Amino acid sequence: MDDRHEQSGAILRTKRIGLHTQREPIVVMRSDCPVCRSEGLAPRSQVLLKADGREVAAILFQGADELLAPNEIGLSEAAWELLGGIEHERVRISHLPPVESMGSVRGRIFGGSLGQTDLARIVEDVVAGRYSDVQLSAFITAGTAVPFDDEETFALTAAMAGAGDRLDWEFDVIDKHSVGGLPGNRTTPIVVAIAAAAGLRIPKTSSRAITSPAGTADAMETVTKVDLDLDTIRKVVEAEGGCLAWGGALRLSPADDIFIGVERQLDIDPEGQLIASVLSKKIAAGAKRLVLDIPVGPTAKVRSQAAGHDLAKRMTGIAARFGVAAHCLLSDGRQPVGRSVGPALEMMDVLAVLRGESDAPADLRDRALTLAAAVLELGGAVGRGRGNERARQLLDDGSALRRFESICRAQGGFREPKVARLHRIVTASGSGTVQAVDNRKIARLAKFAGAPDSPSAGLRLHARLGDSVNRGDPLFTLHAETAAELNYALDYAASAGDAITLSK
Amino acid sequence: MDDRHEQSGAILRTKRIGLHTQREPIVVMRSDCPVCRSEGLAPRSQVLLKADGREVAAILFQGADELLAPNEIGLSEAAWELLGGIEHERVRISHLPPVESMGSVRGRIFGGSLGQTDLARIVEDVVAGRYSDVQLSAFITAGTAVPFDDEETFALTAAMAGAGDRLDWEFDVIDKHSVGGLPGNRTTPIVVAIAAAAGLRIPKTSSRAITSPAGTADAMETVTKVDLDLDTIRKVVEAEGGCLAWGGALRLSPADDIFIGVERQLDIDPEGQLIASVLSKKIAAGAKRLVLDIPVGPTAKVRSQAAGHDLAKRMTGIAARFGVAAHCLLSDGRQPVGRSVGPALEMMDVLAVLRGESDAPADLRDRALTLAAAVLELGGAVGRGRGNERARQLLDDGSALRRFESICRAQGGFREPKVARLHRIVTASGSGTVQAVDNRKIARLAKFAGAPDSPSAGLRLHARLGDSVNRGDPLFTLHAETAAELNYALDYAASAGDAITLSK
Repeated sequence: MDDRHEQSGAILRTKRIGLHTQREPIVVMRSDCPVCRSEGLAPRSQVLLKADGREVAAILFQGADELLAPNEIGLSEAAWELLGGIEHERVRISHLPPVESMGSVRGRIFGGSLGQTDLARIVEDVVAGRYSDVQLSAFITAGTAVPFDDEETFALTAAMAGAGDRLDWEFDVIDKHSVGGLPGNRTTPIVVAIAAAAGLRIPKTSSRAITSPAGTADAMETVTKVDLDLDTIRKVVEAEGGCLAWGGALRLSPADDIFIGVERQLDIDPEGQLIASVLSKKIAAGAKRLVLDIPVGPTAKVRSQAAGHDLAKRMTGIAARFGVAAHCLLSDGRQPVGRSVGPALEMMDVLAVLRGESDAPADLRDRALTLAAAVLELGGAVGRGRGNERARQLLDDGSALRRFESICRAQGGFREPKVARLHRIVTASGSGTVQAVDNRKIARLAKFAGAPDSPSAGLRLHARLGDSVNRGDPLFTLHAETAAELNYALDYAASAGDAITLSK
Repeated sequence: MDDRHEQSGAILRTKRIGLHTQREPIVVMRSDCPVCRSEGLAPRSQVLLKADGREVAAILFQGADELLAPNEIGLSEAAWELLGGIEHERVRISHLPPVESMGSVRGRIFGGSLGQTDLARIVEDVVAGRYSDVQLSAFITAGTAVPFDDEETFALTAAMAGAGDRLDWEFDVIDKHSVGGLPGNRTTPIVVAIAAAAGLRIPKTSSRAITSPAGTADAMETVTKVDLDLDTIRKVVEAEGGCLAWGGALRLSPADDIFIGVERQLDIDPEGQLIASVLSKKIAAGAKRLVLDIPVGPTAKVRSQAAGHDLAKRMTGIAARFGVAAHCLLSDGRQPVGRSVGPALEMMDVLAVLRGESDAPADLRDRALTLAAAVLELGGAVGRGRGNERARQLLDDGSALRRFESICRAQGGFREPKVARLHRIVTASGSGTVQAVDNRKIARLAKFAGAPDSPSAGLRLHARLGDSVNRGDPLFTLHAETAAELNYALDYAASAGDAITLSK
């Protein structure tokens, strides 16, 4: 269809109907709307909206007639925002022309491979919202069933990194990342504090929780402001050497969030996508050096040492092609890190480590030191083999704590994390030694209790691998803000069985 | 999660909000609904609704607060129908438990294969509405990227045929089917009339248009009633030997329509799914013998003779495992059949052939005779090699016409198809010989003109392959009911270019 044809289509005025649909733009036209008939539009048609130079692809539903005047089209929140967040007197509605890059996705489904140009066009269309969820799912599944090879993964990474904003720094910056899947693994604030205290530049942007009970941004938000614009991030990093900000406002690799949303619905995390996801964000953020934490355990994202080594090798190789020196560390992913799960509770663990409190969780401290050591060495703050000693020194002499506090002040001030209103201890129904902790069930418990939307919700673990437990001993304490959420978590604890497995 | 956990969840009352979403059940809760918070439900969560013993899986949106009281949940039309089409004072809402069969889909994505039990469970969950569109897309893409082998295709066919209603007949029945993709290929009414006139039993159920401008059910509906229940179908077939009914009301292989909806969004038609789609419907309809028309052409569904032969071989082999004798005929799919596209216009072609009118389209007549001959021979009405002669005789002596009319009377009465209000001739902008006709563009033109929703809309072709055309000669006449639709089709005709290609 050429422009002339696209210029046909009907004119309506927009109405924001306050429909929250997550990411997907949805528009609603009245069931008796003559435009649907004349345009040949039916429920679930993909339509193109044009107003004042903006274009939005959306899914059409019909109905909600009570909400709409005959000449109005209702916009979901996502559609409203993509059209500029204002009312439009005139919006042009027509069939969405077929997305051309879906042709190469179809080719990939039927056995072809995707080149750099193909992937650049696909990612561009994805970011522009031209792919429906069904099409996104097909793209991701095709690249999993016949896995993306190294060339495709490289090209996908480049396309994703190139499709959003990019940060440039006048100095060398280093970054760290965990591939995730491990509740409580909140090493980032400690690593950033140590690295900045050692004189490195570490502009860390983190995500909020996607499927987990807490992301680093959620945890940091319990003590400071994390929703920073680019200028503020620059100022904080120039003054303090590091920041701990939410990356979501920056549009670094915006395709990533879209792909992740679909992967979550499928409950898959294919390796090629994982590599492109991590590296595209870091490349767009301007990192030249990168320390990667890969937790390995039966209920972590990476299940075996062999899989961890393979992932590390591919990740390092592809990073190198972008001029990024990546160093991967495989870590113990058999149980949650620290003693807590949930934004505020995890932050309390972090503060305990930074403050050198006597009951600070040793495993969190050790993991953070190991990662910080790698950051210091890769960043050139110390020679090889000297990282651990220097990291320990900066933590133990209070330098890291002071740097953490001044980063928080630069971001908008420091406050202590809040404690939840309601607590309930869950006890062991038998005796034995703790043989396994199910990361996924622990995460679900914290989510049922309200994390991350209630920042103080979550749970505190009292038993760890190898501990001896007697019947009636506390296994964990649930923290919640409302009785309904507490009961929901207790219900799940009673029915889901063994989040913590004891030997007989 | 066990039952106890599922029994938690909140109670609301239902409100039908008249939202048309095609197939997908959607529910809307107020943005300030405390239930969302306490249940941890967010926009796009998959939820389970339970009321009076019925269960519906649905996608949650939030908003439309003006439509809903605080204790109400809004139901889309699909959700409303699945909950029995009545208001419920108490509906229980909870998270949809993970669909267990998605585990085997994930296994298939990561390189496994699917056994009979896996596919039976997947199809059962699909029919129960437990799969989101994203999950359906992953299932279909996985079975295309690494194509379903014969065992999987067999098992998928069995699962789909077993998941809905089944028809049993006290006598041997025969069926015919076209794999489609060719506008105007409306042979079915003629074949059924001839076969029934020859004494065979041919209980033909057809679909409405999915992506095409007309399905056989749409065309038949312009002359008689096609929305028949099972009892009426039995009576019609017992009295007349054949019927020409809409299959949609019968729940024969209901998974098929769901899969087709997703394939349409992806614009793919993978072979394994195609075989399972066709055979599962026919097996569920009780057919023991089946004649299959496979049109081959560059813009038809099957693009090459080799692909056609492969498909015929697989189709025949898998049909045989269900005790179905299938006979495949490859036919010319290079241009539309007959002279018309659109429900009423195609029916006029059919009637012209049945009535032996002098200007009846010869190609439609010839194709129908070829297929009828195969049906007569496979059904045992005549010996091998005698089908064509007998079919021609039954058509030429008026037996087929009389049988067609009596089938229509048995279904509820015969009426002549209506002519559209508006016509517009589109002429050639140059001179030459017709070298190619683009089936897809012709189909789109008819759809823009209003087909199939306006049964009289569509187009009549005046030029066919090999015809000499001079500048200004008519190429086709558009038929439409409204000026807007006519203009829309004219716009498309002007911009989409060569639906009909002339030699220079």
